[in-house]
Amino acid sequence: MRTTTGWQSSDRSTALRRVPLERRDLRADDLAVRVDFCGVCHSDLHAIHGLTGKATDGLVPGHEFTGTVTAVGPAVTGFAVGDRVAVGTIVDSCGQCPMCAIGQENFCYQRAVSTYGGTDRIDGTETRGGYSREYVLREKFAYHLSAGLDPAAAAPLMCAGITMWEPLRAAGIGPGSRVAVAGLGGLGHLGVKLAVALGAEVTVLSRTPDKAADARALGATDLLLTADDDALKQAFGRFDLILDTIAAPHDFSPLLSLVAFEGTLSILGAPLETTVRIMDLTFGRKNLTSSGTGGTKHTAELLAFCAEKGITADVEVLPSAQVEEALTRLEKGDVRYRFVLDMSDLD
Amino acid sequence: MRTTTGWQSSDRSTALRRVPLERRDLRADDLAVRVDFCGVCHSDLHAIHGLTGKATDGLVPGHEFTGTVTAVGPAVTGFAVGDRVAVGTIVDSCGQCPMCAIGQENFCYQRAVSTYGGTDRIDGTETRGGYSREYVLREKFAYHLSAGLDPAAAAPLMCAGITMWEPLRAAGIGPGSRVAVAGLGGLGHLGVKLAVALGAEVTVLSRTPDKAADARALGATDLLLTADDDALKQAFGRFDLILDTIAAPHDFSPLLSLVAFEGTLSILGAPLETTVRIMDLTFGRKNLTSSGTGGTKHTAELLAFCAEKGITADVEVLPSAQVEEALTRLEKGDVRYRFVLDMSDLD
Repeated sequence: MRTTTGWQSSDRSTALRRVPLERRDLRADDLAVRVDFCGVCHSDLHAIHGLTGKATDGLVPGHEFTGTVTAVGPAVTGFAVGDRVAVGTIVDSCGQCPMCAIGQENFCYQRAVSTYGGTDRIDGTETRGGYSREYVLREKFAYHLSAGLDPAAAAPLMCAGITMWEPLRAAGIGPGSRVAVAGLGGLGHLGVKLAVALGAEVTVLSRTPDKAADARALGATDLLLTADDDALKQAFGRFDLILDTIAAPHDFSPLLSLVAFEGTLSILGAPLETTVRIMDLTFGRKNLTSSGTGGTKHTAELLAFCAEKGITADVEVLPSAQVEEALTRLEKGDVRYRFVLDMSDLD
Repeated sequence: MRTTTGWQSSDRSTALRRVPLERRDLRADDLAVRVDFCGVCHSDLHAIHGLTGKATDGLVPGHEFTGTVTAVGPAVTGFAVGDRVAVGTIVDSCGQCPMCAIGQENFCYQRAVSTYGGTDRIDGTETRGGYSREYVLREKFAYHLSAGLDPAAAAPLMCAGITMWEPLRAAGIGPGSRVAVAGLGGLGHLGVKLAVALGAEVTVLSRTPDKAADARALGATDLLLTADDDALKQAFGRFDLILDTIAAPHDFSPLLSLVAFEGTLSILGAPLETTVRIMDLTFGRKNLTSSGTGGTKHTAELLAFCAEKGITADVEVLPSAQVEEALTRLEKGDVRYRFVLDMSDLD
C-alpha cells in the first residue's frame, strides 16, 4: 500500500478532517498522480450530506482534478512520470457494454466506477476522491493536460465542463445555433463559454437582472429575465438548446416555451423527479433530456477543444485546508464560479 | 349558405343526432368536398365528453376523412370537381409564423384551426367536422388521394397515420432502426405498418401476450411483454424510438429503460400531465418528446409514401347511422383497428 493525505467527512458535515489515506499499489495499467488542484463540485456537498446514495462514513470527495504523474505501472503506454494529467468523475467501467464500446463509459450498463464513493472492480474497496495529495487509477481514465491550460482553472473542466460539453455536442451546436443557459454557476458559466466558443449565439436565463454584466463578460449576447412574462413571450421558440443547470426543483414550462421546434431542454442540475406537462412537449415536438458528466471520447475531445480555444473555468483557488470555507460558501452560492483546492499544503 | 346533413352531439353523450348543417358559401380558394368516409378517432370521444376544451354543444366530430371535390372557388388551382381528396385535423393556420413557413402548421404559433370545434379565422364561426356529408375548406389543407388507395381505409391516415409518421420521420427512422410501438390501436397499428415500411425492425410492447399474432401480421418481428421483468432487462437500451400510443396514464420508467443511447420516447396517446424521473433520461441521454398530427409538408409526404407502399389502416366500415355503436365499441377498445363511417347513408 501507498500512503497519502486527504480531507475526509465522517459525520455528514462540511467540517472535513485531514487524515492519512491508503492508495493501492500500482497495477500494471495504473498511474499514480500527485493531485495539484481539485475542484469543489456541488455534488460533493450532496455526497457529504448523504443525498447521493454514496456511503458518507469516511467519504473523501473530489472528482475533477489535475496533477502530475509520479509513477506508472509496467503496462502503461500513454503516460510517463512528470506528465500533466487531468482526472474526472469516473475511473473505471466494464469495458464490454455498448456504451463502453463507443467511449460513453459514463453510461456503462454496469455503472461506471465513481472517482469517489464507488467500488473498485478488482479489489472491491471504496474509492476515495481527489481531495487528497495522491490518486491511483487506470491510465484509460486519465487525460493529458495541455501545457497551455492553467492546471487550477482546468480542473473544473473534468466535471462541470464535460457535463456541459456532451449535451452541446449531442445537439450539434455550432455557428448559427441559439443556446440558452439557465443558472450561472460552476456548470452554467462553462456552458456559456463552451457554447460561445462553438460559435453559438448564447443567452443567459436568470430570474434577476444582476447577472447581466457577468453574462456578457462570459460571451453571452443577452440575458433573458424568466420572471418577465413579456420577455418570455417574445422569446417563444427561440432556442435550439437550453442547458438547465438550476439545482433546485422548478417548473419546466417557462423554459420549454423558449425551446425551438424539435429543440431540446437538457436538465443538468439534477432535480431527481419532476412533473412535466406533456403538452409543453407536443407543440413543436420538443425534447426533454438529461445527461451526466462524460465518457473518454468526449472528455478527450473537450480537453483538446479547450486547449485550442484557451478555455478554462473562472475559479477561486484556496489552500486545501480551507475546504470547509469553500463548501460552506458554495452552499450559499457565494463563488464565481468554482472553488478549486490547492493540494500542495498537504505535503 | 350551403346545406348538408351531419351527426351532432349536444349532451356530452355518444348518442349523436342526425341534423341539418350549414356550410359556408365557397370563398375564392375553397373546395366543397362530398365526404365519403370519415374515421372515428379516440379524440372524438374526448371532445364529445368535454375533455378537450372544445365546446360540446352542437359538436360535429370527425377529422380524418376522404371524399370527392364537388365545387371549387375561382382561385383554386390544385383541384378540380371530381378529384379524390383527403382532409385531416386542421383546416387553416396563420400562414405567417415560423411553423407555417416550414409546413408544420400543426404547431402554428397562433394555433391552427381544428377541423371541428375550431374557430374559422375569417367569419369566426365554429368549425363542424367530417361526420357529415359535405365539408368546405381552403384548398391548402386538402390533399389529393391516390387512386390506388381505398378511400375508406385511407381516411385514418389523416389523423392516426400522420400522428405516427411525423415522429418516425423526425427520428430519422429507416433501415437498421429499431422501433417499438406501445399500444396496438388505431394509432399503434399504423405506427407498426409505417415503421416496417420505412425499413425498421419493429417490436410491439404489450402487457399481455394475446396480441402477438396480430403484431406479426402487421409486420412486427416481436412482441415484448412489459409485465415481464426479465424480458425488459434483456431489452434494456434496445430501441432508437418508442411510439407510446397508450391513452391511459402510465409509468414511463419501464419504457425509458428500453430506449437506446440518445434515443427517444415519444408520447402520442396524450396523457396530459405526468411525472418523470429525470434519472431515467440521464443515463443514456434519452429524449422524452411528444407530437400531434401533422402539417402540410409531412401529410403530403405520408400520402405519397402510402400510395407507393400500398399502406392503409385496418378498418371496420359502418354506415354513419351506426355512429353510436362505433363510439361505444371504441370506448371499450372493441375495434381492429379503426372504425370508419360510410357517409353515403346521409344522402
